[in-house]
Amino acid sequence: MSTQAAVALVDWGTSNLRVWLVDAEAGVLGERQSPEGMGTLSPDRFAGVLESHLAALGAAPDLPAVVAGMAGARAGWIEAPYAETPAGLMELPRQAVAAPGTGRDVRILPGVCQRTAGAEDVMRGEETQLLGAVSNGLTDALFCLPGTHSKWVSLEEGRISRFSTVMTGELFQLFSRQSILRLSIGEGRASAGHPAFGEAVEEALDPDFSLTTRLFSIRARGLLAGADEASAASRLSGLLLGAEIAAMRPRLGPAQSVQLIGSGALTELYAAALLLAGVQTVSLDGGELVRKGLFAAARALYPQRFPEIAP
Amino acid sequence: MSTQAAVALVDWGTSNLRVWLVDAEAGVLGERQSPEGMGTLSPDRFAGVLESHLAALGAAPDLPAVVAGMAGARAGWIEAPYAETPAGLMELPRQAVAAPGTGRDVRILPGVCQRTAGAEDVMRGEETQLLGAVSNGLTDALFCLPGTHSKWVSLEEGRISRFSTVMTGELFQLFSRQSILRLSIGEGRASAGHPAFGEAVEEALDPDFSLTTRLFSIRARGLLAGADEASAASRLSGLLLGAEIAAMRPRLGPAQSVQLIGSGALTELYAAALLLAGVQTVSLDGGELVRKGLFAAARALYPQRFPEIAP
Repeated sequence: MSTQAAVALVDWGTSNLRVWLVDAEAGVLGERQSPEGMGTLSPDRFAGVLESHLAALGAAPDLPAVVAGMAGARAGWIEAPYAETPAGLMELPRQAVAAPGTGRDVRILPGVCQRTAGAEDVMRGEETQLLGAVSNGLTDALFCLPGTHSKWVSLEEGRISRFSTVMTGELFQLFSRQSILRLSIGEGRASAGHPAFGEAVEEALDPDFSLTTRLFSIRARGLLAGADEASAASRLSGLLLGAEIAAMRPRLGPAQSVQLIGSGALTELYAAALLLAGVQTVSLDGGELVRKGLFAAARALYPQRFPEIAP
Repeated sequence: MSTQAAVALVDWGTSNLRVWLVDAEAGVLGERQSPEGMGTLSPDRFAGVLESHLAALGAAPDLPAVVAGMAGARAGWIEAPYAETPAGLMELPRQAVAAPGTGRDVRILPGVCQRTAGAEDVMRGEETQLLGAVSNGLTDALFCLPGTHSKWVSLEEGRISRFSTVMTGELFQLFSRQSILRLSIGEGRASAGHPAFGEAVEEALDPDFSLTTRLFSIRARGLLAGADEASAASRLSGLLLGAEIAAMRPRLGPAQSVQLIGSGALTELYAAALLLAGVQTVSLDGGELVRKGLFAAARALYPQRFPEIAP
């Protein structure tokens, strides 16, 4: 087994940066994490920030680096134009863009866009997690990636055939903190164990359900029945997730299961809501998947650096 | 025709106060408007504010006053408990509550609540507009009252059988000013004449449409196609109104028409969206209806003051 670094892998999102040095067999030799996300940097600072982390890891000056995420957005380091759906994940590395300002070979992977009228959508970073899943052999599945902007992605034969961004986390924050519903939700926290959560999910799964015409019931219930804050928060979360799952149900394959990539409170709420909808979930580790996706891209971009594994 | 005041009529909402002196035949003898809404007053100030406006109108000290709106909320002048659906509008005056602190006879009309599980709802003020419609002979219809919190109200034989509050105006403001969509909407204004409005309404009328899973398309379209701000604002408005109309369609009676109470830009957008949905609209003046509703309540509460018209 080699202990020499074959490549640096970089997950550069809006609010975080992760760097790994890996050997030719994907073994992790070193790792760095930092809050120097793309959202905090001007374009001219990316090269210096990456170099400082690579130096701290003892990377050789000629070690190539593969980058995924918002660093490739228009306002990032350099724009890596989107691949379009249907987007073959194993083909993404071909569209990688060379990043300037550093002596080493740095390639930024593209995001994916969908130009379907009315369902226009974009992603940057999630496609690399999915490339990790594909390199693990998972080529046909429905994925759900909970977050401020959750993604639902259909994979067919290793290609992203269709995807949707749902502003779930952001909508929950807006409704519970800024709208009139804040008067009933206060500091209440949504809990999958609260009866109001399950009731709301079931309610929202009804084919005649309409979210916007039911939101105000949270406030009215507080006024009429004196519902507590945890109940109101759980009801809001259940209505949002139930409506989202109802919309995504037609995309479930014959296995009626969803690959859930994430961790934390929101992912737990998704898992509980999916269970109530009769949908099986498989939990996947997003950090591990992005590293695997970056590794698969590195193998495609620099085959000569992976002699033992290259086909 | 009498020119002597029979009663004072008061529409006291969250942000506005309107007072009319009317004679026994509903003729308006004087009128006052003020921004001294319920939201700006502590409970002990209502009596004094009303008295100052009645004095300015030259009302006699023993002239009774009938009040509708948020003045009857828990945090208002004095709580006038809700009547429950199905709520007979001609019977609302019986539940009026006497307001303290002034020498005259002042009665506050109740709001209406709906306790249906999952569709809990409340109104204060709109029921008096609907009482005005009923006193005009309009006893069976579907009403839409656009606003920050729009109301859809089904009237059957003069009773409110069912109603829904939709936070349309508030959601538009939240999404366009506070969410990530603000980056695409900027200072753009929604217009019923913009092609993006009509397209979005049609899209949202589709039975498989889901609002939360399509909102992000507004941002993505801005990124991918460089859509302008007016287009993005019109799309947001069309998606919201289309989803709302789709949810309310099952409540349309055989006439497939809606009584639209309101004026201004938002009401125009509703009228245009309803037209696109193949729904006829009849426009009604909300200010006139509330005065008629208050007058009908006054006749029921003080029959001796209306000798010519009392049955």
